[in-house]
Amino acid sequence: MTSTPLPVAVLGAAGRMGREACRAVEDAADLELVASIGRGDDLEAVAEAGAQVVVDLTVPSAAKGNVLWAIEHGMHAVVGTTGWDEQSLGEVRSALAGAPGLGVLIAPNFAIGAVLAMRFAEIAARYYESAEIVELHHPAKVDAPSGTARHTAGAIARGRAAAGLGPVPDATEQDPDGARGAVVDGIHVHAVRLRGLVAHEEVLFGGTGEQFTLRHDSFDRVSFMPGVLLGIREVSRHPGLTVGLDGYMDLG
Amino acid sequence: MTSTPLPVAVLGAAGRMGREACRAVEDAADLELVASIGRGDDLEAVAEAGAQVVVDLTVPSAAKGNVLWAIEHGMHAVVGTTGWDEQSLGEVRSALAGAPGLGVLIAPNFAIGAVLAMRFAEIAARYYESAEIVELHHPAKVDAPSGTARHTAGAIARGRAAAGLGPVPDATEQDPDGARGAVVDGIHVHAVRLRGLVAHEEVLFGGTGEQFTLRHDSFDRVSFMPGVLLGIREVSRHPGLTVGLDGYMDLG
Amino acid sequence: MTSTPLPVAVLGAAGRMGREACRAVEDAADLELVASIGRGDDLEAVAEAGAQVVVDLTVPSAAKGNVLWAIEHGMHAVVGTTGWDEQSLGEVRSALAGAPGLGVLIAPNFAIGAVLAMRFAEIAARYYESAEIVELHHPAKVDAPSGTARHTAGAIARGRAAAGLGPVPDATEQDPDGARGAVVDGIHVHAVRLRGLVAHEEVLFGGTGEQFTLRHDSFDRVSFMPGVLLGIREVSRHPGLTVGLDGYMDLG
Amino acid sequence: MTSTPLPVAVLGAAGRMGREACRAVEDAADLELVASIGRGDDLEAVAEAGAQVVVDLTVPSAAKGNVLWAIEHGMHAVVGTTGWDEQSLGEVRSALAGAPGLGVLIAPNFAIGAVLAMRFAEIAARYYESAEIVELHHPAKVDAPSGTARHTAGAIARGRAAAGLGPVPDATEQDPDGARGAVVDGIHVHAVRLRGLVAHEEVLFGGTGEQFTLRHDSFDRVSFMPGVLLGIREVSRHPGLTVGLDGYMDLG
Repeated sequence: MTSTPLPVAVLGAAGRMGREACRAVEDAADLELVASIGRGDDLEAVAEAGAQVVVDLTVPSAAKGNVLWAIEHGMHAVVGTTGWDEQSLGEVRSALAGAPGLGVLIAPNFAIGAVLAMRFAEIAARYYESAEIVELHHPAKVDAPSGTARHTAGAIARGRAAAGLGPVPDATEQDPDGARGAVVDGIHVHAVRLRGLVAHEEVLFGGTGEQFTLRHDSFDRVSFMPGVLLGIREVSRHPGLTVGLDGYMDLG
Repeated sequence: MTSTPLPVAVLGAAGRMGREACRAVEDAADLELVASIGRGDDLEAVAEAGAQVVVDLTVPSAAKGNVLWAIEHGMHAVVGTTGWDEQSLGEVRSALAGAPGLGVLIAPNFAIGAVLAMRFAEIAARYYESAEIVELHHPAKVDAPSGTARHTAGAIARGRAAAGLGPVPDATEQDPDGARGAVVDGIHVHAVRLRGLVAHEEVLFGGTGEQFTLRHDSFDRVSFMPGVLLGIREVSRHPGLTVGLDGYMDLG
Repeated sequence: MTSTPLPVAVLGAAGRMGREACRAVEDAADLELVASIGRGDDLEAVAEAGAQVVVDLTVPSAAKGNVLWAIEHGMHAVVGTTGWDEQSLGEVRSALAGAPGLGVLIAPNFAIGAVLAMRFAEIAARYYESAEIVELHHPAKVDAPSGTARHTAGAIARGRAAAGLGPVPDATEQDPDGARGAVVDGIHVHAVRLRGLVAHEEVLFGGTGEQFTLRHDSFDRVSFMPGVLLGIREVSRHPGLTVGLDGYMDLG
Repeated sequence: MTSTPLPVAVLGAAGRMGREACRAVEDAADLELVASIGRGDDLEAVAEAGAQVVVDLTVPSAAKGNVLWAIEHGMHAVVGTTGWDEQSLGEVRSALAGAPGLGVLIAPNFAIGAVLAMRFAEIAARYYESAEIVELHHPAKVDAPSGTARHTAGAIARGRAAAGLGPVPDATEQDPDGARGAVVDGIHVHAVRLRGLVAHEEVLFGGTGEQFTLRHDSFDRVSFMPGVLLGIREVSRHPGLTVGLDGYMDLG
């Protein structure tokens, strides 16, 4: 019988993502929110509450310490912060080596649609002469292009390289104002900023006489929750360190 | 009875637009192609053939001379070349002043959809905080952004000014690779180049909680022909000089 | 000097639209919310509060009485309920006949983008052989197609009739499962229901070698507020009865 | 060294697809068109010309005989006709059993983008509560919905079943004119017919707060040629019978 709900703790529970995650865990019949920890709260409450999975939605500077603490205390960890370098990942791997059966998922993007777009983009890239990316966000975003668009450009570049494709065709000679956008890993990336939008990405592929398009729209932060829940439910079946939610998805 | 077809001459008949125009005139029951003139051919053939409307699809350097010749010989003119400056337009106006009843249409863009997009963009611009343009073309295009996109940006800027709107909201602080594209008349314009495409334009408007989008796709040069035919049929009802196909369209 | 804010009352203030409208009025520097009335509250509070504009966001059965009451008390009215028949409109007109200077706006749709889409659709319809509508909504919607899509089909039909266009081309012989959708005023209308969506409409026009597309996305009920505010600010400048927000917009 | 071009024969060379295929083979440096056969021509010319791959773009009634003839003469076959039943496929398998090393590809759809859309749709379907299909074609098409849309609906249904998803959410109670379209394998399918279009498919997925979209546009019959060339180049590496171009593509 699998009737006992899985006990889950959320770190960073006072942030916007953290609040949504607490609500999503509470709403899931097979999960139980046993601890929600804000900045300054004591992690010991997590251990005392008997959490088996720790969800870290804090900030880059705190995440590594939290993960190592979770491993030390025999808990799986699902992490949504970005900015992990190879050294930090190495420390997590070392800690996990001494904790067989424990799993850690580090997912810079919990939007399942963004993960699908990236994976499909890498595959489709093999079959098309042209590829470009348009990302669209709310006008309060301070950086351009988005991290997701940069990663997608990288995925397209890998797909093109695997297929032996050269540079994309482009006869542009005059572009005095930079309308052709950024070039990331050889792929042109355009960033639109529009009131009313949240986070959107369009990947365009072109070949003679045809076009193939992938598009992902995030209308609301709640769209990240299915990915968070997938991570929580699957982390115990994936011992060791997994980077990227796609490691838990059946994309074959 | 209006049963006699209108006699039409096409100049620049050997070019790609010219060939399409000859075919379109021949296929129209109410029009008759009485002369098709290539480079080096004698214009007198046009007069002898009794053309009442001359369609000029030649090159900028030849167009003004052709139009003045048509006016002198009592013919209306429909012109598809770009690059007219105020002085040349003034010469045409002077010639028309001495030829009451004759009409000249100079239309840099015969795509009805592009004309609609530009007009609607100017109106919609009054009601939205954000506006951006994405134009998409085949990868053999040498300039970016397209002339149509530049004109559309101008139309949006006029609409915003009329409504008293200030600059579009944009919090971008970091854009090392130029992903935010060109800025034309205060409007961000992005140019995509993709094999398989012909000529496409998307105008995006955003306000709190909503988006409004105009899109025009030209899949084939033949899409310009309804605009050419509209010009031919309407030119005699519009004495004097008209610049822009929208002058003949009921967009009110 | 126009420094005194316009006093506004909202009826139906406890409903979803009503709450948004109260917030929008409160946030507008040139407006003052002097009364917010729910079901069962006494309308006299509106009069005592000195409202000059009454916004009715109640239900069809209550709206007419509210409007007549407002006219009687010398207030302008802006109404968002649907279901007005000719007889009810006639009663409002009669009441206004005795109240020179007072204005009433009845707007079944406050989304400016939907109003623009409908108006532009009627114009564009004159120039394209084909036209179809795809409306997309959340899956909790009980009726299909949407009222906006029905009205848009009517607008397209008017545009086609004005241009002397006949039926849309359609060679379909086999469609056993009804994939071609509903036919409203001769225009095919398709209704998509998708989790995550709110209210969206796409109007597609096609001609030889080209496509023209209008699209409006409402991501949030807040998108109706610019239309409500436009109505409140303009109603005193439009004495008599106006049906449709487009009567207050400069769409020429 | 692989410098000798692969000798290819095209059957059905006088048809629209056949003519494009002859041109594509001629334009490919690694292939040589050694025979192009129309209706009534003698197949012996194919054998005499030394073809190693036979491309069959004839009609369903002729295709099986051609394939069996090719196998008998030691040639690989790439087939674009539809309408194969299990019995016919069985005959081809039997013939191949006696011809080790020979390959036959039967591909009802050579558009790589349509194959990608179908495959990605099956994967994405596992992760979204809602899914619908909009296919768009020229108005001369006699059947609705398209075969590709039907197959895609089937792929989505398989993906949903694999993920244990139930019926799509849909609260529609009133749909007097059939705006919700056809239901194929539990998935709503909408067919748009628009002058100017060729063959297009949009697959829409929705979850709380997000949308995921796949779109494929065929602007021209030439868009099928990369798929035909892929089949010709790969068929010798895939002994036995393969149904569907995806069997030759790396979609993992």
